[in-house]
Amino acid sequence: MKTDTSSLEIIKSTTSKLDQTKLDKLVFGEIFTDHMLECDYENGKWKTPKIKPYGPIELMPSAKVFHYGQAVFEGMKAFKDEDDKIWLFRPEENFKRINVSGARLAIPEFPKDYFFNGLEELLKIDKEWIQKGFGNSLYIRPFVIATEECVSAAPSTKYKFMIICSPAQAYYSGEVRVKFSETFSRAADGGVGYAKAAGNYAAQFHPTNLAKEEGFQQIVWTDANTHEYLEEAGTMNIFFRVGDKLLTAPTSDRILDGVTRKSIITLAEEFNIPVEVRKVSVKEIVEAARKGELKEMFGAGTAAVINPIVGFGHKGEKFELPKLEDTYASFFKDKLMKIQYNQAEDRYGWRYEVKQ
Amino acid sequence: MKTDTSSLEIIKSTTSKLDQTKLDKLVFGEIFTDHMLECDYENGKWKTPKIKPYGPIELMPSAKVFHYGQAVFEGMKAFKDEDDKIWLFRPEENFKRINVSGARLAIPEFPKDYFFNGLEELLKIDKEWIQKGFGNSLYIRPFVIATEECVSAAPSTKYKFMIICSPAQAYYSGEVRVKFSETFSRAADGGVGYAKAAGNYAAQFHPTNLAKEEGFQQIVWTDANTHEYLEEAGTMNIFFRVGDKLLTAPTSDRILDGVTRKSIITLAEEFNIPVEVRKVSVKEIVEAARKGELKEMFGAGTAAVINPIVGFGHKGEKFELPKLEDTYASFFKDKLMKIQYNQAEDRYGWRYEVKQ
Ligand SMILES: Cc1ncc(COP(=O)(O)O)c(C=O)c1O
Ligand SMILES: Cc1ncc(COP(=O)(O)O)c(C=O)c1O
Repeated sequence: MKTDTSSLEIIKSTTSKLDQTKLDKLVFGEIFTDHMLECDYENGKWKTPKIKPYGPIELMPSAKVFHYGQAVFEGMKAFKDEDDKIWLFRPEENFKRINVSGARLAIPEFPKDYFFNGLEELLKIDKEWIQKGFGNSLYIRPFVIATEECVSAAPSTKYKFMIICSPAQAYYSGEVRVKFSETFSRAADGGVGYAKAAGNYAAQFHPTNLAKEEGFQQIVWTDANTHEYLEEAGTMNIFFRVGDKLLTAPTSDRILDGVTRKSIITLAEEFNIPVEVRKVSVKEIVEAARKGELKEMFGAGTAAVINPIVGFGHKGEKFELPKLEDTYASFFKDKLMKIQYNQAEDRYGWRYEVKQ
Repeated sequence: MKTDTSSLEIIKSTTSKLDQTKLDKLVFGEIFTDHMLECDYENGKWKTPKIKPYGPIELMPSAKVFHYGQAVFEGMKAFKDEDDKIWLFRPEENFKRINVSGARLAIPEFPKDYFFNGLEELLKIDKEWIQKGFGNSLYIRPFVIATEECVSAAPSTKYKFMIICSPAQAYYSGEVRVKFSETFSRAADGGVGYAKAAGNYAAQFHPTNLAKEEGFQQIVWTDANTHEYLEEAGTMNIFFRVGDKLLTAPTSDRILDGVTRKSIITLAEEFNIPVEVRKVSVKEIVEAARKGELKEMFGAGTAAVINPIVGFGHKGEKFELPKLEDTYASFFKDKLMKIQYNQAEDRYGWRYEVKQ
């Protein structure tokens, strides 16, 4: 899509909240940097993007996003290395995916140059918010919402694309136990499960609350038809280590094509870790657990990079996983983070420098 | 839930847009009355509801509704009779349903007295917007959105409940042809299809756009597992008339329990029209159409009351329905509307007067 890239409007904030922000005591997703990117779609085209002070947006209560959930988002991170260089990790994947998600929700394609120019400019302006140190990062949230002021159930004619940024520390969520879903589902065949569609997330809150009452922190979703195959968690793809073999479900129209997931698959191949991308049945995982062959389970996603899972529950039974010394989870986490923080060779061209 | 009902705050608009509004040339859902109801949830409780001039709301870009689609809504109508009395139709059903939807999305229950007192007060204040005349009405849109300013994927701690109202004329959508879905799905078993969850609607836009390119106005969704059974349309439950028998799918966790649908079933029983509530297969409907036994198809929902369907498509084949003189569609529409407009006996206690 051709767009005039010279025209990014910038209105700088006259003050900064950075001084008053405790960057060593961050709760994920609560604090935002001084600026944000905003770009409106109207009359069939995206208008000039604007960077402006982070602050409230005004919408009519009839705006379609409030009624029909026509909204998609992305999650990515910026990292600062020891030389103050700023890096993104495979940002092209997030750019492509927000448009894949958008297409499924009838949201017009966002132009590539608007995305990259806007994002990079925003990061440069708010670069002081990106903390150095292994584990620290700036979480980046691009999203699109439908803003047309009309409650008829049809695609919006107006949209707002935004990028907001939130400083993040190494993510530690405590010990995570998961429940394999038995009745509730996240996505249907032919549905929107593969999209980062806003509504997919709210749909998981209630079942997750119920799982929490049973002592689990998250749900591993199973296929809606039979509940026999393990798919993914709420915001992470899932890997299983049986013996020395790594298993993960193939992507489909029900499963998000995660950037972390596919990076792990590539690294596994590089380091000769046997990895099978295929349907993983609840039955085989339960059996492997009983036999002591289930060595590890972990989630993979941008926020936590890799989130080890220490136990799972299924049909009223609870299983604890062994505590290993050398885990695949920590191996991949270290490999990935070293690439992200410019501490290791970038063999696949995954790192993307934000030129300052 | 016990709440103090005396405390409804009212701020009246000093001007009215009614003069400048062409009530005889309305597009559905574009124009709103002078006032709206707003009620915020914070610290574990719903605060005092406010009626105030219709206008924009301010939200931070991190508000959860924008990211996770945690939002539910309702659709209902107010009618004015020849004596200027104002009537609602089975409003208790909508009140119950917004909380059923809310529970599935982890949204706290909204109190009954807030709902009814707020709605009735709002209707009284904006009563000039309700036009007399068979077919005219005021469309009422209660909805709840998640407003907590945090992008972590967990239920919001803050919400906003609102009611906005839009004057509506008799709904005529032109000739409607529907496509029976073959690949796309609306809802999963164990999912949120039975809820009026915002995200359910955006998910239908893209498949509906594709159906439009093939000459259909809407999609009749089939079960996600097999696509062999007919479920419902985007905003309407669906009825089929085969010979003199009326068929409609049972409600389930994939199908919205429509107020219009269940009212039609009750009326069918009263008027000795044979009605079967059971799984309706694509196969039997296609066969009935081939044999000339499929006499009618129609959608049932608050916006259109009843929407006759003149044809359908399946696997590349198109079917046109016969043009009958006396249709069930017009029979039920007339019966329902006469009850709604206080022109017929209300045998089931469906009418609800808004005391002025
Ligand atoms: C449903 C879902 N699955 C998996 C992931 C992991 O994807 P990625 O590695 O691209 O962050 C995410 C989060 O982004 C997600 O929302
Ligand atoms: C998905 C869906 N099905 C059916 C209906 C019809 O329900 P009701 O008759 O209560 O308006 C609606 C609209 O309200 C709907 O959104």
